[in-house]
Amino acid sequence: MLTYDLSQRGGTPLYEYLYSQIRQDIIDGILQAGERLPSKRDLARHLGVGVITVANAYDQLLMEGFIRSEERRGFFVENVSGYRRKPPKPVAPKEEPPEEPDEEFFADFKANRSGVSHFPASIWSRYMREALSLPTDNLLKTIPYNGLLELRCAIAGYLSRSRGIEVAPSQIIIGAGTEYLYGRLMQMIGSGTTIAFEEPGYQRLVSISESYGCKGRNIPIDEEGLIVSELEKTEAAAVHVSPANHFPTGIAMPIQRRLDLFKWANRTKDRLIIEDDYDSEFRFNGKARVPLFAQDANQKVIYINTFSKSLVPSLRISYMVLPPRLLKRYVETLSFYSCTVSSFEQYALARFIDEGHFERHINRMRNFYRGQRQLLLNALEESPLGKISTAIEHNAGTHFMLRVDTALSGKQIKEAGREQNLNISLISDYYLNPDEVDSRTLVINYAGIEPHHVNEVLARLGSIFPECG
Amino acid sequence: MLTYDLSQRGGTPLYEYLYSQIRQDIIDGILQAGERLPSKRDLARHLGVGVITVANAYDQLLMEGFIRSEERRGFFVENVSGYRRKPPKPVAPKEEPPEEPDEEFFADFKANRSGVSHFPASIWSRYMREALSLPTDNLLKTIPYNGLLELRCAIAGYLSRSRGIEVAPSQIIIGAGTEYLYGRLMQMIGSGTTIAFEEPGYQRLVSISESYGCKGRNIPIDEEGLIVSELEKTEAAAVHVSPANHFPTGIAMPIQRRLDLFKWANRTKDRLIIEDDYDSEFRFNGKARVPLFAQDANQKVIYINTFSKSLVPSLRISYMVLPPRLLKRYVETLSFYSCTVSSFEQYALARFIDEGHFERHINRMRNFYRGQRQLLLNALEESPLGKISTAIEHNAGTHFMLRVDTALSGKQIKEAGREQNLNISLISDYYLNPDEVDSRTLVINYAGIEPHHVNEVLARLGSIFPECG
Repeated sequence: MLTYDLSQRGGTPLYEYLYSQIRQDIIDGILQAGERLPSKRDLARHLGVGVITVANAYDQLLMEGFIRSEERRGFFVENVSGYRRKPPKPVAPKEEPPEEPDEEFFADFKANRSGVSHFPASIWSRYMREALSLPTDNLLKTIPYNGLLELRCAIAGYLSRSRGIEVAPSQIIIGAGTEYLYGRLMQMIGSGTTIAFEEPGYQRLVSISESYGCKGRNIPIDEEGLIVSELEKTEAAAVHVSPANHFPTGIAMPIQRRLDLFKWANRTKDRLIIEDDYDSEFRFNGKARVPLFAQDANQKVIYINTFSKSLVPSLRISYMVLPPRLLKRYVETLSFYSCTVSSFEQYALARFIDEGHFERHINRMRNFYRGQRQLLLNALEESPLGKISTAIEHNAGTHFMLRVDTALSGKQIKEAGREQNLNISLISDYYLNPDEVDSRTLVINYAGIEPHHVNEVLARLGSIFPECG
Repeated sequence: MLTYDLSQRGGTPLYEYLYSQIRQDIIDGILQAGERLPSKRDLARHLGVGVITVANAYDQLLMEGFIRSEERRGFFVENVSGYRRKPPKPVAPKEEPPEEPDEEFFADFKANRSGVSHFPASIWSRYMREALSLPTDNLLKTIPYNGLLELRCAIAGYLSRSRGIEVAPSQIIIGAGTEYLYGRLMQMIGSGTTIAFEEPGYQRLVSISESYGCKGRNIPIDEEGLIVSELEKTEAAAVHVSPANHFPTGIAMPIQRRLDLFKWANRTKDRLIIEDDYDSEFRFNGKARVPLFAQDANQKVIYINTFSKSLVPSLRISYMVLPPRLLKRYVETLSFYSCTVSSFEQYALARFIDEGHFERHINRMRNFYRGQRQLLLNALEESPLGKISTAIEHNAGTHFMLRVDTALSGKQIKEAGREQNLNISLISDYYLNPDEVDSRTLVINYAGIEPHHVNEVLARLGSIFPECG
């Protein structure tokens, strides 16, 4: 007769413990295929438990297929010899890729920290609390595919006030990050299509396009942005541009080039422009440029922007605006995708925008960045590094470029930087083939540099270069 | 000389107002291509403003390409005749697709509300506040591609305690919803691949696979789940199953069928099983079934689950667990994708799990659903509808099936339901070709039905069927 020490069961219910013991005996072959189990009544008497306990344990074993019941004959062990005998070992540490190294640099010119210490956490917190205390029906139910109406209305208002774009909330689609929305666009455009990108640029979008089966094609830029005549030479059906503030150069596309781009787009029905308005909020002199979307008469432009940069990187909320013609296509083919942003954060952001906090935050950050940039540029001019380098900047974004007159290679600059605990970013990082590019131009993202560290950062940066003396 | 009424400018800075007036005149053709603008000094004197104001306005026009500067000759209007003259009209209402109808049903058997009124909003709120008040450096910086370590550790602990799965946190990848993670998997598996699905099942995943260029292939089920011999007949390289709790039937896959599935997977190196453990938390008798992932000796199974169902639909947090072999492949090919969940919510969820609230919530909801189910089944038995119908249920999930002995077609049932303000769901909705399936089986998702509405809901439901008398 089966015997188990039921006092060993700890907090587990009796029937469950009994079930797991019998189950283990079957897996281990102690109870063999075809063997008959004692009747419920007999086993209950033997173990000193209620019949219902044994019945529950047998039921569970039956349901899972470890035993079968034959009418009037009782319960029999099934053949489960193919079943793995041991529970899987936890993955050995050597097999697992290392956790993302949490390196802390003294200055990280690469990090997209965008002044995180300025994020108005207490105001945000207030709206999150408000969202959480709303009547449940509003926020807890399933979110529309394109996001909460409240947030789409708030964004439409912001776009009208700040970017000269007049759209209906239904044209806006909210998603968890630009990459996410970009993926949907790639699916709408269709695999096999060639997509053009500005080079230098954010090469990750090229990878994403290719992961969707599209062909990425880099197009060089000049001092007015993407060279449209080079674009004409490709088979591209769509082009990704940031006309208000090219990344990482900060170039803004002047009107003639914009007209050229429209000419390219209007030549065939299917050509599209994906306008990434990333970082357009941070332009320090003059007004932000009017987006292409607002100048587009032929429903060719898709506008895309994110709150991860303008508010805080850890908030994964981006949006895109589609012209009606393309919206129709999107709704027909891709609106089965659920919205990827939690409704609490959508609601909080809607209130944050509607109450004016977003625009106040942008203004505050613009002033902060302007000061930070000037502080760094001034300190640079007075530092030894200033004598062997030239800052190249277009009064935009949270970074500038620094061309250094040095004999070091890009690799050497990065390695020497690491020794100084600096995470160096080079313009060549934004090219498809970094090795083919002159890499002595640094991209200085100053958003994460503490103002009281500026002199120390420049001293460390200078010490990398032998030419600095 | 250019004349503008600068008193009309409202709150706009002088230079910006002047810039926009000149810009508009250029666009409107009032200032023509080639025309020379007055010198800064002359225009400043004429308008009674400072030279610096005019200089700033000209600078902006220069930067945007509306005018050019010729040395010693002054400023000239550029040819911008291709520029659209009128700002784009807001999209006419008729052109835009209607907002998602916010239909409110008296009972919605389709809605995935999962007892939203039980969501412990105040506890959640506490952890959100905590997340928002943490030192900024922790939560505001960019999130690792696979999610916050804190949350991955919490999930690893939960899986060990509740699902018998022992994994390292680095094997877990967090994403904004199951569909999102599913998309990444489709990309890893590769377009062109055939993926098999249980039918009936969640057809949306088939659409998603196809939107990634994979071929979806439905496989019929019997009372033990997916029929593996049918799977063998296909070219599928991966199969999507919910062995703990098939949706919508609630069938749990017994061990022999699981062994068959492993045999299929182990036959070639590349075959994979995607185990969707959706709703496995809600099984009312017996323990939840051990996941395939825990029984897999050959790194064939990818485990996927969501908090949107077990906690609240508006929270878009799901996760998948990869065996080391596949994790390596994922890291190499797809880890350039940024994490799509905000770090605040990740942190709050980690704390919520670590402090035991998640498992308490699951237990509370399991009891609630069990009671709700019993209430509905009892009321059904006593109602006229009970006389012409049979409930089919496997003690799992937040729904059961109801086979109705009626002459009505599926379409008629739905239409009559709508008249009673009921949103009806049919088993045929979960087939690729609903028309080919006997559709007189309803799927009754009772998660969103208020207990005090149960009798009224059943009365309305019964009134649909002429047979109910």
